[in-house]
Amino acid sequence: MDVIVGGGVVGLSVAWRLAREGRPVTVVDPAPASGASHAAAGMLAPVSEVTYTEAPLLRLGVAALRRWPAFASALAEDAALPPAGPEEVGGLDLRAEGTLDVAFGADDMAALDELAAFMEKLDLPVERLTGRECRRLEPMLAPSVRGGLLAPGDAWVNPRRVTAALLAALERRGVNVVRARVSELVRTDGAVTGVRLAEPPAVPDEGRGSAPLAATGGRAGGEVLAAGRVVLAAGAWSGELAEVPVRPVKGQIMRLRSPQPLLTRCVRGTVHGSPVYLVPRGDGELVVGATQEELGYDTRVTAGGLYELLRDARELVPGVTELEVADVVAGLRPGTPDNLPVIGPGRTPGLTYATGHHRGGVLMAPLTAAILMGEESELAALCSPGRFQEIS
Amino acid sequence: MDVIVGGGVVGLSVAWRLAREGRPVTVVDPAPASGASHAAAGMLAPVSEVTYTEAPLLRLGVAALRRWPAFASALAEDAALPPAGPEEVGGLDLRAEGTLDVAFGADDMAALDELAAFMEKLDLPVERLTGRECRRLEPMLAPSVRGGLLAPGDAWVNPRRVTAALLAALERRGVNVVRARVSELVRTDGAVTGVRLAEPPAVPDEGRGSAPLAATGGRAGGEVLAAGRVVLAAGAWSGELAEVPVRPVKGQIMRLRSPQPLLTRCVRGTVHGSPVYLVPRGDGELVVGATQEELGYDTRVTAGGLYELLRDARELVPGVTELEVADVVAGLRPGTPDNLPVIGPGRTPGLTYATGHHRGGVLMAPLTAAILMGEESELAALCSPGRFQEIS
Repeated sequence: MDVIVGGGVVGLSVAWRLAREGRPVTVVDPAPASGASHAAAGMLAPVSEVTYTEAPLLRLGVAALRRWPAFASALAEDAALPPAGPEEVGGLDLRAEGTLDVAFGADDMAALDELAAFMEKLDLPVERLTGRECRRLEPMLAPSVRGGLLAPGDAWVNPRRVTAALLAALERRGVNVVRARVSELVRTDGAVTGVRLAEPPAVPDEGRGSAPLAATGGRAGGEVLAAGRVVLAAGAWSGELAEVPVRPVKGQIMRLRSPQPLLTRCVRGTVHGSPVYLVPRGDGELVVGATQEELGYDTRVTAGGLYELLRDARELVPGVTELEVADVVAGLRPGTPDNLPVIGPGRTPGLTYATGHHRGGVLMAPLTAAILMGEESELAALCSPGRFQEIS
Repeated sequence: MDVIVGGGVVGLSVAWRLAREGRPVTVVDPAPASGASHAAAGMLAPVSEVTYTEAPLLRLGVAALRRWPAFASALAEDAALPPAGPEEVGGLDLRAEGTLDVAFGADDMAALDELAAFMEKLDLPVERLTGRECRRLEPMLAPSVRGGLLAPGDAWVNPRRVTAALLAALERRGVNVVRARVSELVRTDGAVTGVRLAEPPAVPDEGRGSAPLAATGGRAGGEVLAAGRVVLAAGAWSGELAEVPVRPVKGQIMRLRSPQPLLTRCVRGTVHGSPVYLVPRGDGELVVGATQEELGYDTRVTAGGLYELLRDARELVPGVTELEVADVVAGLRPGTPDNLPVIGPGRTPGLTYATGHHRGGVLMAPLTAAILMGEESELAALCSPGRFQEIS
């Protein structure tokens, strides 16, 4: 039996893949799909996401994006989602109209030029646009936009629909999702052999942020689940269970409601030195993200975070001021020292990592599952836990 | 039997006053205490609220504020609220540390000078302060504050606690609060003789904004409640039931949560040409208000509204950026052509008005009840419905 610790998009994707191969698997999470996956915008944007110093991340991202269409189709079928239009694979709102990265000042323009040159060297399709061309593609863009870079292959998806579909598919396959918190990994003779479930907390569990109170789903606290293998997919909380250099990177994100779509593709830009992006959903929602804050396990929505998002979104697309605010949440990304995820077995027998995805958890969830199935040995080397001395 | 149409702070205060006099009374509202009273900040600030062109409004406000301490004490007792400290009368969070109106630029400073001169002519206690003196009173104020005007007698209260206490007091006195919408006033021989309750709507009632779906509380739609007198206290919706020149003035307001109080008194100022105020509550909440928008019956919280509040609050008190956002709502104030409320009987027998309080509903609720009891004939003349030709 494999036990997956963490029911976010990564843990659920790994569990689903294992279940499809007929492998016995259990997921443990006090509140599945409520952490970083719930806050994520769902950009599948390897090309526009990287800076030109991050070639390994770009390679991973491009490979990860390639897996998404088949992953989404199979998931929609397995979750028995109602069929949707060609632009929205199986109700997951998977769309691939590309990302438009825009520039306002001379510095931004120079950065886009450098990025374009880097992409072209790697044979990645990008298109350098003038301000006028940008506004022809996206008429709601601010008049002050001077130029842009279009990554036509970039895509995006609705992460809340993805995790809901994964949970539905797991249920249809009879996979047990234990709604409990793991208090520790159980070790026998130096090997991990299971997980111990936490006693139900007497007071609210501050550390879990927006997650509801841990519930043990009828199981007694302290109970041990035996496992042939434990897969640690606990995102920003992974470091609490094993020695892995993952830290929480807080992101605040806002959902606006638009009667007519303001944009047809993802738009991003750097405003007042901070990056902002706008992601349009099929249902008229417009996601504005995201702050990046290093504040430990803090998931409060703050006046300052909201202010930055609103200020920068207005600068990019002034028309957002008229939109209704539907939702504001904060989540914690699992950051690593080199911005690459940690995937695969470490030095401890019985323990496998699937964490540290930082801003790329949604994008890389299908690839992560594939790496754990042994399908991508070359990419697996980039994510190997062994690159960190401290890993157990 | 008096029937009060509208269960906001004004309608509930009138009903409570009538009930205390032993008069039979019924309140009708689909969702009591959920409209403008729910969104209000609760400033009882007649001095800092007016401009020097509004002497009648100032007279009303000063008289209204004078009634608050006795009103709050009686209400706390009648609602059987637990006793509270001297600064918080009976759990209503009534406080009287004054309002500090601050200025940034030369224009603001000149406006404060004019206001101070006007107040002194009326023998109202105000104090002109330098920027340094302002920051001595409120150390969290922005360094760019150049001066201020302290209205030491101004007070504030928590309106949500006031309406909750009024509902509790009415229940203790056995007053019937019918949770239904009034579809029309029933007229017999030119006189109003009752109200007709609306059929439960088949679809959400867009016009009522944040109010829940109208529910008839077990009564059949279309039923008529006979009334010796109907008191129209339906706020921004009053014009839908009778000819009274009341229009909705939208306000968006935000509640922040502060571990330590940032301010000890109400602070207001004009930032980028729009007025903003900060109201500290006893429980650490800090209310930031409020937009003023003329958009009809629109109660959406918008990106632009939130942006303005956050931008202006930061300008006044930079430390707000660190605070958690607890709540954002929008309400509709009942505005009138001369900014004065409409209180008393009109030309139609059986119909009395208690509406049009615009930004002053909480402040003037006790005074409004007193005027309807015939206690303030001089002030009643200022609010007379007869001043409007169109009133029915």
